[in-house]
Amino acid sequence: MNLPSVRSLAEQARRARTKLALSSDAARRRLLEAIAEALCASAPTILAANEDDLIAASSRGMSEAMLDRSRLDRRRLDGVVEDLRRVAKLPDPLAAQEAVRVLPNGLRIHRRRVPLGVIGVIYEARPNVTVDVAGLALRSGNAVILRGGSETLATNRALIAAIHEGLRGEGFEAALVAFVDRSDRESVEELISLEGLVDLLIPRGGESLQRLCRERSRIPVLTGGIGICHLYVHPSADLERALAVIENAKTQRPTVCNALDTLLVDRMVSAGFLPRVVERLGALGVRFRADPQAQELLGGIPGVEPAGPGDFDREWLSLVLGLKVVDGIDEALAHIARHGSGHSDGILAEDREAIARFLAEVDSAAVYANASTRFTDGGEFGLGAEVAVSTERIHARGPVGLEGLTTYKWVVEGEYHCRR
Amino acid sequence: MNLPSVRSLAEQARRARTKLALSSDAARRRLLEAIAEALCASAPTILAANEDDLIAASSRGMSEAMLDRSRLDRRRLDGVVEDLRRVAKLPDPLAAQEAVRVLPNGLRIHRRRVPLGVIGVIYEARPNVTVDVAGLALRSGNAVILRGGSETLATNRALIAAIHEGLRGEGFEAALVAFVDRSDRESVEELISLEGLVDLLIPRGGESLQRLCRERSRIPVLTGGIGICHLYVHPSADLERALAVIENAKTQRPTVCNALDTLLVDRMVSAGFLPRVVERLGALGVRFRADPQAQELLGGIPGVEPAGPGDFDREWLSLVLGLKVVDGIDEALAHIARHGSGHSDGILAEDREAIARFLAEVDSAAVYANASTRFTDGGEFGLGAEVAVSTERIHARGPVGLEGLTTYKWVVEGEYHCRR
Repeated sequence: MNLPSVRSLAEQARRARTKLALSSDAARRRLLEAIAEALCASAPTILAANEDDLIAASSRGMSEAMLDRSRLDRRRLDGVVEDLRRVAKLPDPLAAQEAVRVLPNGLRIHRRRVPLGVIGVIYEARPNVTVDVAGLALRSGNAVILRGGSETLATNRALIAAIHEGLRGEGFEAALVAFVDRSDRESVEELISLEGLVDLLIPRGGESLQRLCRERSRIPVLTGGIGICHLYVHPSADLERALAVIENAKTQRPTVCNALDTLLVDRMVSAGFLPRVVERLGALGVRFRADPQAQELLGGIPGVEPAGPGDFDREWLSLVLGLKVVDGIDEALAHIARHGSGHSDGILAEDREAIARFLAEVDSAAVYANASTRFTDGGEFGLGAEVAVSTERIHARGPVGLEGLTTYKWVVEGEYHCRR
Repeated sequence: MNLPSVRSLAEQARRARTKLALSSDAARRRLLEAIAEALCASAPTILAANEDDLIAASSRGMSEAMLDRSRLDRRRLDGVVEDLRRVAKLPDPLAAQEAVRVLPNGLRIHRRRVPLGVIGVIYEARPNVTVDVAGLALRSGNAVILRGGSETLATNRALIAAIHEGLRGEGFEAALVAFVDRSDRESVEELISLEGLVDLLIPRGGESLQRLCRERSRIPVLTGGIGICHLYVHPSADLERALAVIENAKTQRPTVCNALDTLLVDRMVSAGFLPRVVERLGALGVRFRADPQAQELLGGIPGVEPAGPGDFDREWLSLVLGLKVVDGIDEALAHIARHGSGHSDGILAEDREAIARFLAEVDSAAVYANASTRFTDGGEFGLGAEVAVSTERIHARGPVGLEGLTTYKWVVEGEYHCRR
């Protein structure tokens, strides 16, 4: 089979995007509904393709955790379709008119939200990403080029076929959701070289992929998904309830970026509280890496070992938790500033002043008072879904939904105005 | 003299920025007022330093145009100080609380505007940039590293001394406005390598500087300032008034990025209108590059020559104007999509439908109906000043003022909320 080059996919996507960008809110809603229906109608094909992917991956020795990430069963597919319908119902991201005003010279000026253009997304495993990203991109008037992982190539082909059916049924070109039907490295290198054809790159993968994009591509890159997340237990915290939040942040889904990595406990309460943390989370299989002061309080307890160099700079993505005793909020803030990744960090406290200070001074994408870091998520934040959790400081930060896929243009209307 | 490395300047700026970021609106306003006063008090020193710069530059054979760009006389310095005071009075860019809501589970969530961090700006000549950029950065809570051109090194030193006096007088560290007191290429290369210390690079210079930043730096880059600007004369335009706008866009200041480069005239009116354009603008010294159809109408008129290959892809920055006859709005839109740089483009028309279509379909940072492209400017748009005119699609587009120097963080407050 002679596959089209990534460049020709991008050129087609670019040409197709204008009609979508100028389409009405209702047309884009209908488009997502049509895709949702096509996905439902194709469910047997999609699930069978996923079964094939899993059998092949399993025979290649893929880990159970990775197999689980790659699995698309009926329940998960229903969830994906439900998310798509939720995004369809969100308010039109292109409706906003901002900064509307009349200048002293009579010029009428406003900013109009417009789609970014063509988005390139590189991702692995999780087939829900294919539909989530296509849905958010189309709802906000963008074309998208998807380059998924080899593990779910058959699944993605089946999903894309349904998406294309939805697009054609509503009179749009299939080229709006381009799929790079290859899993070689060259296809990634070609995609990231398409400056002028691709407006934004979103690498959803490990650090090496993110570095490749940042170092080799001249296209703006939105990276994220790497979180070294902290909770700080202030002496004023309700310790019983704090324990529940810590358990949730660490164990509810330990393999994701917003799971807890390091627990900072104020010295004022550490002697009583740390053993309770270890007892409760240890029973759930969590192992601990303790700094010298925590080690003094916990030494000898099974599952607790001294933190090694670099342990407080690690995203664990597993049932391991760093423990550190801090001398008040100052040391907690300093530790987070030095070791955090700017993703999600929280304070557990009743003291309003400590809370206000933590929320103001911690410079992360999401800062929490008395809640689990696990909430950093487009769905949880009410964005419908997310294309990524950005740890960038420019353009979009934290969960990126529809708004992050738009830009604006200045619209200026006059009566043959000249500048003096 | 042993100058500090650019890295150590950035480290100091990074440490100093937290206090500024957390300071009140009133404190940041007072800071800008104090700098304005220091600049006034140091005016004789600053103007003398500029005199030295100009004498040195002139003896090196600098062109009169460049000398004029580098000149800071009393009137211009007063203008710079006035702009700074205007920025001081703008609403606090860090006050906004966006997307405030209570989620169904009771979590209280909002987005809080925060400074970007440390901004690196590389620029040439125009000494007003030093004060404009420092003022916008400080007003929005950012530290800044300035690397100006060699032509105005003495002027910049004097300006920076006054800025530092203002900072110290208000209890802030001088390190917040770091000045790279070198004009070698190595200092640029060091600055753009400081990933993790510098949050955003703004290269305000030619294409080669912009390319250097984009290719060599892993820091996000905000580029702009290259404008291939169009006006399209629709048959419904009031041709007499259109003529005045065209004259203004081309001749009011031909050396800048928002000046007109190509005039597209609808075939319906071209025979009568093009000769009038050539007569009126030709009298002001404008020369013309005509496409074959315009050439047919204008051939033989002095100052008109056939457009060469690539002439419609050039930013003229001088009294040259491309002329092209187009077959209706479709051809005008297609020409702009193909040849424009996404900076500033306008339509001259009375027909509401044509205007609406042009404003919707032209995908540029600023789109105009019946006004000169020369208005694309932070001051003219009411932003007080600008750090750049962005032709990026991400983060900030068009004139970038205070808002473009901020990002946001998500603030989430709960009652020991756990995710299900």
